[in-house]
Amino acid sequence: MYDLIIIGAGPAGLTAGLYCGRYKLNTLILEKVSCGGQIVLSSGIENFPGFPGGISTQELIERFKKQVDLLGVNIVSEEVSAIEKGSGNYLVRTESNIYPVKTIIIACGALPQRLGVKGEEVLIGRGVSYCATCDGPLFKNKEIVVVGGGDKALEEAIFLTKYAKKVTIIHRRKEFRAAGVLQDKAKNNHGIEFIMDTVVEEISGENKVEKIKIKDIIKNTKSELACQGVFIFAGITPGTGFLKNQLNLNQLGFIITDENLKTSLEGVFACGDCRQKELYQVINACSEGAEAAYAAQKYLLEKK
Amino acid sequence: MYDLIIIGAGPAGLTAGLYCGRYKLNTLILEKVSCGGQIVLSSGIENFPGFPGGISTQELIERFKKQVDLLGVNIVSEEVSAIEKGSGNYLVRTESNIYPVKTIIIACGALPQRLGVKGEEVLIGRGVSYCATCDGPLFKNKEIVVVGGGDKALEEAIFLTKYAKKVTIIHRRKEFRAAGVLQDKAKNNHGIEFIMDTVVEEISGENKVEKIKIKDIIKNTKSELACQGVFIFAGITPGTGFLKNQLNLNQLGFIITDENLKTSLEGVFACGDCRQKELYQVINACSEGAEAAYAAQKYLLEKK
Repeated sequence: MYDLIIIGAGPAGLTAGLYCGRYKLNTLILEKVSCGGQIVLSSGIENFPGFPGGISTQELIERFKKQVDLLGVNIVSEEVSAIEKGSGNYLVRTESNIYPVKTIIIACGALPQRLGVKGEEVLIGRGVSYCATCDGPLFKNKEIVVVGGGDKALEEAIFLTKYAKKVTIIHRRKEFRAAGVLQDKAKNNHGIEFIMDTVVEEISGENKVEKIKIKDIIKNTKSELACQGVFIFAGITPGTGFLKNQLNLNQLGFIITDENLKTSLEGVFACGDCRQKELYQVINACSEGAEAAYAAQKYLLEKK
Repeated sequence: MYDLIIIGAGPAGLTAGLYCGRYKLNTLILEKVSCGGQIVLSSGIENFPGFPGGISTQELIERFKKQVDLLGVNIVSEEVSAIEKGSGNYLVRTESNIYPVKTIIIACGALPQRLGVKGEEVLIGRGVSYCATCDGPLFKNKEIVVVGGGDKALEEAIFLTKYAKKVTIIHRRKEFRAAGVLQDKAKNNHGIEFIMDTVVEEISGENKVEKIKIKDIIKNTKSELACQGVFIFAGITPGTGFLKNQLNLNQLGFIITDENLKTSLEGVFACGDCRQKELYQVINACSEGAEAAYAAQKYLLEKK
């Protein structure tokens, strides 16, 4: 029996794996897709301490993974469908296995949030995208709209100017939330235009995106904008569907923990973007991975 | 006037600087000694995510610092003697300046704790040390005692076997607190011996360390051990003396914050090892630096 299963192999799960490996806990990491989580949806990261000038997210994740590999912690590709209370332990169910385990760290992360407008779902992969790194190169010399006002929206808009003829950022507020340096970079980039105080109401096109309907929420006027791509950066939604009714989640599905990362289930801890918290950065996810590992090994010691 | 002063340039202060720089806050970092804080007292670090196989602490700090430099954030070498409430702002006093400032992040870190036994103070620098990296090379072919049972004690004991003829770890408990991989490494190292359940009662020698008196606390027996070096890793004590009576500290002097890193003074935040918390790791300090920066910029926005 494993001492501990970590669900998810993004920055939080991999750092938890690093610490659990160093604690010499018999640890298994389960990841449904591939290592990295959301950060691989971005091309690079500039604000992870230790990498002046930035690092590609692929390389950063490779480094995290190698550090875990060196400790002999297994990472297995299986999707967790449920966690259940067994007799004195937990059971972690995947499509192909049932793992009995003493303690669990949930680091299942989050995914980009849908905008929730007409035409969005049907045009995903046909011009609607949530990942500039993945889909940017498909939009050479095209006109792109970026929706959002946070760090990620501006970072990705800047990145997309490498490919697109024009990038228009549409943001529902008067000001961006993004870091000042990113705002400067975007404003100094001649490939980017800005439409503020404006929301997207519909995305449309025959087989692929052709235009969007937008609304200026101050003037209360509507208009249309021709474009071939719509990149949406409207926040995140946690991948916690498999936990429903099993532990305390908030209304949006984020896991509620105390400050030591304990969930409402004894011996189950959560860290990273699946957790209700203030700041969703890679450095915070890593830190919480270490904290969850520490809490889990302490729990195991006390349980003995 | 600066928007923000960060007191301390260890991992927490430098990451706060990185984030404040990216927020484009007019930021000054004040550091009394040199960048790095406590981590430069260790030679290397293996558990900072992103560096498989480990990295020297000097290089890691250089990387943190370069990332801050690239953003144009100033790091100035001045010791803060007090923070005071001014009219609508704070005043940060150093030996040579008084800086008015809107908000403050305290990241002043901690220093190694004294053991508090007879002979310790007088023999500092004469065989008593708190820094294996600094002083290890002075003990070639000597007999060294390492006092402590945490990660740092074992890491440093392993490091000291590079120089010493023999390293004896003395720990007051039956078991080490250190991570399992470190315990294995230490136990497999033929240069290291172990004396458990034992405390050091006195360090003595004419002009330099010659021997220590120890006591087995189970058998209640006393004995002496000849040695030329005593390396003490008995925890940390925060560098918060200049804050006494100004904000809430716990009994040991660690700063009490809420989970958003607010101190008892409005607009003053704290992060890293100077703070009362569960886990004192570099990755946590960095994460808290980012969180404190986020909280400070939010405070400045709301104050506007």
